[in-house]
Amino acid sequence: MNKYGLHGKLTATAGNTDKLAAILLQAAKLVATADGCHVYLVSKDAATEDAVWVTEVWDSKEAHDNSLKVAGVRELIGQAIPLLAGPPQKGQELEILGGAGLNSSY
Amino acid sequence: MNKYGLHGKLTATAGNTDKLAAILLQAAKLVATADGCHVYLVSKDAATEDAVWVTEVWDSKEAHDNSLKVAGVRELIGQAIPLLAGPPQKGQELEILGGAGLNSSY
Repeated sequence: MNKYGLHGKLTATAGNTDKLAAILLQAAKLVATADGCHVYLVSKDAATEDAVWVTEVWDSKEAHDNSLKVAGVRELIGQAIPLLAGPPQKGQELEILGGAGLNSSY
Repeated sequence: MNKYGLHGKLTATAGNTDKLAAILLQAAKLVATADGCHVYLVSKDAATEDAVWVTEVWDSKEAHDNSLKVAGVRELIGQAIPLLAGPPQKGQELEILGGAGLNSSY
């Protein structure tokens, strides 16, 4: 069955990119064992200064939405919000057909 | 150590999206066991019809570049090229800081 992917950007206020990334890496640890979580990557790219990218793969959109209820996640969101330069943009939603790196491959 | 990510789009000629995706899924199987490959996902998204997205995570750019030498990969590229609506665009290069879903996490 296809999986749900999300590739999105959070932009930090000047000087806070690393702090924001550190919070998101903590969130990755929390959701890594959540039901239906396959991938939760935290990245920067050279082209978008101040931005932190989050790339997620879940069994379904519902599994993703439930991740917001994982213990500790809301607290981390609360820490991240004051570091953001603006409201989070809606990320790119992907229908994951398959590939390598999922918990149960192909 | 940070890893190398690439998130890119291939656009198929009309009616060939599924055929292109199938070729990329075969490529995913070939590179899944290549040195330094963590993630190779093949996706579609509702917003970009005719497009197939490939999201990769490798130990380094060099590991990614070497994947083109994996047996069978060039043949698959040869099958994919006639299905493309234009030359592949350069994907978004990511510096992966960490997260869940990598072979050796965090």
